[in-house]
Amino acid sequence: MPNKKIRIALDVMGGDFAPINEINAAISISEKYSSEIEIILIGKKSIIIEELKKQNKATDSFEIFEADDVITMNDDPTDAIKNKKESSIYKGLEFHKNSNSDAFVSAGNTGAMLSLSTVLLGRVKGVARPTIGSFFPSVSEYPVLVMDVGATVEPKARYLYEFAVMGSIYYKEIIGKSNPSVGLLNVGEEEIKGTDIIKETYKLLKNSNLNFIGNIEGRDIFEAKSDIVICDGFVGNIVLKFAESFLNLLKSTIKDYSEKSFLNKAKVGLMIPVLKDVLKSLDYQNYGGVPLLGVNGVSIIGHGKSSPKALENMILTAKDMVNADINLKIEKALLT
Amino acid sequence: MPNKKIRIALDVMGGDFAPINEINAAISISEKYSSEIEIILIGKKSIIIEELKKQNKATDSFEIFEADDVITMNDDPTDAIKNKKESSIYKGLEFHKNSNSDAFVSAGNTGAMLSLSTVLLGRVKGVARPTIGSFFPSVSEYPVLVMDVGATVEPKARYLYEFAVMGSIYYKEIIGKSNPSVGLLNVGEEEIKGTDIIKETYKLLKNSNLNFIGNIEGRDIFEAKSDIVICDGFVGNIVLKFAESFLNLLKSTIKDYSEKSFLNKAKVGLMIPVLKDVLKSLDYQNYGGVPLLGVNGVSIIGHGKSSPKALENMILTAKDMVNADINLKIEKALLT
Repeated sequence: MPNKKIRIALDVMGGDFAPINEINAAISISEKYSSEIEIILIGKKSIIIEELKKQNKATDSFEIFEADDVITMNDDPTDAIKNKKESSIYKGLEFHKNSNSDAFVSAGNTGAMLSLSTVLLGRVKGVARPTIGSFFPSVSEYPVLVMDVGATVEPKARYLYEFAVMGSIYYKEIIGKSNPSVGLLNVGEEEIKGTDIIKETYKLLKNSNLNFIGNIEGRDIFEAKSDIVICDGFVGNIVLKFAESFLNLLKSTIKDYSEKSFLNKAKVGLMIPVLKDVLKSLDYQNYGGVPLLGVNGVSIIGHGKSSPKALENMILTAKDMVNADINLKIEKALLT
Repeated sequence: MPNKKIRIALDVMGGDFAPINEINAAISISEKYSSEIEIILIGKKSIIIEELKKQNKATDSFEIFEADDVITMNDDPTDAIKNKKESSIYKGLEFHKNSNSDAFVSAGNTGAMLSLSTVLLGRVKGVARPTIGSFFPSVSEYPVLVMDVGATVEPKARYLYEFAVMGSIYYKEIIGKSNPSVGLLNVGEEEIKGTDIIKETYKLLKNSNLNFIGNIEGRDIFEAKSDIVICDGFVGNIVLKFAESFLNLLKSTIKDYSEKSFLNKAKVGLMIPVLKDVLKSLDYQNYGGVPLLGVNGVSIIGHGKSSPKALENMILTAKDMVNADINLKIEKALLT
């Protein structure tokens, strides 16, 4: 018996390489998953039609939902709520909220996705604050989910506990590891370490039925000491952006070394292709965007620079979230 | 006219490679700076004598101040204050406090150095909380001083302001860059971003006579957007330990790649020596330990794994701090 197709609304205007990468991903997914997924393109119709032609696809291959405006990466999220009601993110989320799709996916402005999703979709019952996580590479075969990375900079202990519940459900259902472990990011392992909020959170986690392994430290993130790392959005955001800058430091260090002598330059010339190959596995694009957890819908946020491959992974994550009924599971876990 | 020699007490028992590296550094410094620096060795006399013999140095080359006990890396700092009064750190700090030396240097337990220095030496007038910073490598020719990295996990805005004052003086006098810039670590550049404490600190820094450049983000640390990065000890400690784990992730990623095929293994074999050479410039040992700023004395803390070279740099930093009269400058800056 054929299932009903999952309808996923895709923001075609949001990413740094929009609409090319978005249309490319939509075409690829619709070919590979024609019986399971239906993509609805959200954006300016004329631009979409033009890009479909460029990519040799019939202009009526997709349902298109018109959105005239776009929220740029530099737009202020608070401002966008008031003044960008015709934007692809706003219209796409409304489209999803009105049950015209099962999910919404965008590689656009993260802050705008975060605040508009929260305002337009509302919260899952039992959730005080939605949260956004991020996947970090690790020495393990599994990525590490750090959350929150910016939704709430000064959470109460209860919010942090909720993040851990939502993260555990997401990790189990989407990453596919049963009973994922939860660590609380702190300045030491002992229960008495850290701020008052962190100490209170420790108690909540210890008394929960989560697989809580205790406090972990900064060095334990990449070591995958826990699958999920719980922290406030202030610390998480700083750690995330700091991690993203490491490769730049490495590049700059290699460049300085290379410029010291011709011999160094030659050595580096031989090393670079190998190093690039090695570093591929650290690429964020493997993880298919991050979900905004706790909103009453399925809203997937991707990096602005998302490749077609990354966008495809985001769409598949959306499908998995719908299939796994993540929000119902979160509601049950938090209300009981 | 010859100056009076600067007397520096050196903890010979503290580091991971004690007493070998410590004695080695002491011998080297006493040879290179015989007219400027006098080293006093703090530790168990019998062990010191034995090591001096091993390193072919006359056993009466140094003044030795007996300390029978040692605080290990695993000892709890709070416990050490009560129960480790015969340890090299405790005795060395007492020795320094009683004006028998101009400074104290240790590569031992950081937490114990921090709390014992604060308790035994007391605070510089005008300083509410001493702070410990750490040097980060950067794309600039100058290292970046991040502070606090663990002394105070929940500081008031005033403390953070004081950290910035102390850091600026230290950076100018010891690193030798006039008018060093100060950035406040935050989740965005706008003045309205961050926690209440951070917003309050922003105002204090903006109205100060420091070279405050505003908020900086996680990605700006390695970019050296500011010379000094101000944050609370919770964030700073996590970021520091996280940074130290980057190279392990890189190693593990290279290993995984190498194990995929014989060709990969061969490629990696050729790359490793070059990469090691490149990464040398990221070595923390270049920076000569970190000072505990705001204590009424000169107390220099080094990494447990400090090499003789790193220990020599720590001793030279101590000398520079004494010569520059850092504490008097801090007192003047904070009391006016």
